Amino acid sequence: MIKVGIIGYGTIGKRVADAVNLQGDMKVVGVVKKSKDYSLEIGLKRGLNVVALNEQRGGLEELVKKADIIVDASPGGIGEKNKEIYLKNKKKAIFEGGEKASVAEVSFTASCNYGEAYGKNYIRVVSCNTTGLVRVLHPLNRDFGIREAFAVVIRRAADPKETKRGPINSIVLDPVTLPSHHSEDVKTVIKGLNITTVAFKIPTTLMHVHSLRVSLEREASKEEITETLIKEPRVIFASSEKGFNSTSQLIEAARDLGRLRNDIYETVIWKESLTMLNKKTVYLTLGIHQEAIVIPENIDAIRASLKKASKQESIKRTNESLGILKEEIT
Amino acid sequence: MIKVGIIGYGTIGKRVADAVNLQGDMKVVGVVKKSKDYSLEIGLKRGLNVVALNEQRGGLEELVKKADIIVDASPGGIGEKNKEIYLKNKKKAIFEGGEKASVAEVSFTASCNYGEAYGKNYIRVVSCNTTGLVRVLHPLNRDFGIREAFAVVIRRAADPKETKRGPINSIVLDPVTLPSHHSEDVKTVIKGLNITTVAFKIPTTLMHVHSLRVSLEREASKEEITETLIKEPRVIFASSEKGFNSTSQLIEAARDLGRLRNDIYETVIWKESLTMLNKKTVYLTLGIHQEAIVIPENIDAIRASLKKASKQESIKRTNESLGILKEEIT
Repeated sequence: MIKVGIIGYGTIGKRVADAVNLQGDMKVVGVVKKSKDYSLEIGLKRGLNVVALNEQRGGLEELVKKADIIVDASPGGIGEKNKEIYLKNKKKAIFEGGEKASVAEVSFTASCNYGEAYGKNYIRVVSCNTTGLVRVLHPLNRDFGIREAFAVVIRRAADPKETKRGPINSIVLDPVTLPSHHSEDVKTVIKGLNITTVAFKIPTTLMHVHSLRVSLEREASKEEITETLIKEPRVIFASSEKGFNSTSQLIEAARDLGRLRNDIYETVIWKESLTMLNKKTVYLTLGIHQEAIVIPENIDAIRASLKKASKQESIKRTNESLGILKEEIT
Repeated sequence: MIKVGIIGYGTIGKRVADAVNLQGDMKVVGVVKKSKDYSLEIGLKRGLNVVALNEQRGGLEELVKKADIIVDASPGGIGEKNKEIYLKNKKKAIFEGGEKASVAEVSFTASCNYGEAYGKNYIRVVSCNTTGLVRVLHPLNRDFGIREAFAVVIRRAADPKETKRGPINSIVLDPVTLPSHHSEDVKTVIKGLNITTVAFKIPTTLMHVHSLRVSLEREASKEEITETLIKEPRVIFASSEKGFNSTSQLIEAARDLGRLRNDIYETVIWKESLTMLNKKTVYLTLGIHQEAIVIPENIDAIRASLKKASKQESIKRTNESLGILKEEIT
């Protein structure tokens, strides 16, 4: 049984905790959270072992000693500071996308580079937008070659629980200049990819949407591209015919499915958005649930780091435990 | 003095009425509005002559006889029905972008095809998004040739005054399929252009934003492209350095400028968004004030139809009357 310590119990930390405890081959042995609040209280009711509050270094180190591996889901930048404690205690750690790529030996999504992460001490699970993009671009690049990719990232301004972020009524260029950091982050996983992204922040909380234009090296039919994407784990299609034409309907479906916190772990492609301008240029629209999409990658990163399972085995196990869908949402 | 009759007194109609009365060479001789409300009452206080309410055909025809030309700003589709009255009375008319292109002899933006519209009886001023796109794509196509254009249209869900439209908290694929109608509409003005658009509706009311990728036939430098765009009438730059990084700051600037209803008649390009991926591929981000951008084109369409001014003359006169800026907003 892998003993997992979780540092930070916010949007990602609490979800990783729940996912770890669903696995069967791992369990949470403690979490460190800055302050006590409703979400920690609910976590405690559900069996969490809280080692330290208020970031007391002693408490954090106590957990580090006790655990086989740490998932550091602290706010961006804090993970890097905590790393000295992991190094001192020779403890492996998984970092999140808010940290710089240099914090870890490898930037990670399960399908793209599980092998590269195998046995590594420090793995960085890339951010939600990057994870969503890589899951689609990696198989396209592998099967057809990507000559150039362009993504417009339409970002939710805040998570549902956040009350202090905006905009209220605006479209914010985030930033005004191109490229946004997303394309640079994708390249930490898919090295050398020719990709440009631009991002906009808008007044919604549910999900991000990406509009993608990909030009391919080799000619492909719509059927071939669909087949490549449908075979990819954690990529599913949502059909407009079944009533999916916005982010809110996806979240409603996750609620209907009984998903914990209405989480969508999959990268969603709107089926009817997949359009070939010609045999080498494809457009598609993605939905990305910012709170949840990286959770399965965190679980796989734990197994990869500790060499506890092969790529196929880990992905299968994680997917089954979280009820991750294949091919289509419904 | 050109006698202008205005059918419909909504978002566009009331703005055209105000703009006509600012010109000096034309005046409003009457408006037809379905029902009386606060905005008509304010219009009457400001000197409008209302001929008929409740779409009484008799009243509408009375105005048609009295006017030299009609601007039909009825809801989409109604203009086409009204056209039989204009035909019967041999009266020229300007239609809006909500009508099918077939309603008129020419789909119009002033800079692109004033000449084509000169003397025509029926001119269609294209919609806000199309007008915004054409103002940028026409000069780029003229000076460098456009090989392929792709625009992601991030649409405001409702105008500020509208209370019955949404989404409240969602990103709506509008539609899920590509292309959205915008690229098809651009082609009614710039014939044969290779353009694809995809559109998303989001919870904001102020402006639309377009993220544009244009690949050119000929190589160009950033300076050449800037020069081409800066010379184009009704295209202005907004600089992030001066604090413009969203739609709300543009609207605030229009308020500070004392613009009636904070209207922005110009297509706005965020200066720092203009990025060359290589010498033939340019990215840029546009802001489009959906309520106001077509107003100057309506005025020019009147003069073009009645052969009352040359293209340069009409654009100059319209721009001066509305305080349209050159080069940069501030």
